[in-house]
Amino acid sequence: MTVPVFTPSFLKDLDRLFVWRRDVRHFHSSPVPDTVLNALLYETCLAPSVGLSEPWRFVLIKTPERKEAMKQNFIESNARDLEGRCGEEAKHYATLKLSGMDEAPHHIAVFCDINPTQGRGLGRASMPETTTWSAVMAIHTFWLAATARGIGVGWVSILDPELACRTLSIEPNWRFLAYLCVGYPQKSACTPELERLGWERRNPNRRKWIYR
Amino acid sequence: MTVPVFTPSFLKDLDRLFVWRRDVRHFHSSPVPDTVLNALLYETCLAPSVGLSEPWRFVLIKTPERKEAMKQNFIESNARDLEGRCGEEAKHYATLKLSGMDEAPHHIAVFCDINPTQGRGLGRASMPETTTWSAVMAIHTFWLAATARGIGVGWVSILDPELACRTLSIEPNWRFLAYLCVGYPQKSACTPELERLGWERRNPNRRKWIYR
Repeated sequence: MTVPVFTPSFLKDLDRLFVWRRDVRHFHSSPVPDTVLNALLYETCLAPSVGLSEPWRFVLIKTPERKEAMKQNFIESNARDLEGRCGEEAKHYATLKLSGMDEAPHHIAVFCDINPTQGRGLGRASMPETTTWSAVMAIHTFWLAATARGIGVGWVSILDPELACRTLSIEPNWRFLAYLCVGYPQKSACTPELERLGWERRNPNRRKWIYR
Repeated sequence: MTVPVFTPSFLKDLDRLFVWRRDVRHFHSSPVPDTVLNALLYETCLAPSVGLSEPWRFVLIKTPERKEAMKQNFIESNARDLEGRCGEEAKHYATLKLSGMDEAPHHIAVFCDINPTQGRGLGRASMPETTTWSAVMAIHTFWLAATARGIGVGWVSILDPELACRTLSIEPNWRFLAYLCVGYPQKSACTPELERLGWERRNPNRRKWIYR
């Protein structure tokens, strides 16, 4: 294969991809074709992994009962988070739509095999969490590959992870990382929904190096 | 801003970016211009973060003594990892070059503020690790943006993270995630070095969905 040279035009589009990638909570219900979902998983598996361990496990939820149980898990976890807030913040929090689980045509749970034989432990002796972090980079790869195809992804983390493992009959050495809602987004935006709704803003100080 | 439409040609190049992104351990010593490093950090801050918390902290190491101390940290951690292996595997491990710290012109340490006020705790009540995972996605964004500019990144994880925090005089609530070697790579490749050297191979089963 020829070594690729990435053009200025590609860099501009890659920047656009980063700018327009959103955490989507408003979906159309029309499904994404299987061929496209499979292409996304193929791209995902090009993600970096410590020792080439490929510890990610992508689970496509097909059973309506399981989707429903995951929705209940979210509703209860979200209610607990709201209970812990008070005053104006609680009111504001209650208005936020924090999951597209009702409409999204595809629910994908992502796990990490936290003790994989693949990779023979290379790179993780002193920092075993690098295994989990490899699976997180796979999620991010999925997210970018989806956005580039006009497909929205919403990462739901307001969940009880142990209950999620039981609901989805997951083996004990797999750690629950993410529940992804996937489908065509109702709208695109170049700013985060939490910023548009006044919850939080980007901090320009993050774009500065800290020197040592 | 106009909603971007990503062309088939962009998708092909994005695939090439994922395919050719490598964990680089062989660098030229010529430095990357500051303007380019700054552009990379700017792109990095477009990464997703839980509750828009932007918990990543990017530290550029300038002090030669600190770079040297980090190299020693690697040498000792790597020796400990080797001690735990035996027979053919130990011999093979000993031949692998697992860090480009000697030649890479830039050393960047990445931390996560594990309890940020920014984001007001949204999305992390039941899964607090999502904060760390946001910073990991920022590292991955940096990696992709660098690769697209012909710049190599090598993630060194064979380190004692607590010692790294002391060496770099880091505040207590920041967690050490990664030590990145950054510079122009000596060569490009579309397969991982660990695969070319026979340490590990990609597993095609990872490209299949698990159904529930």
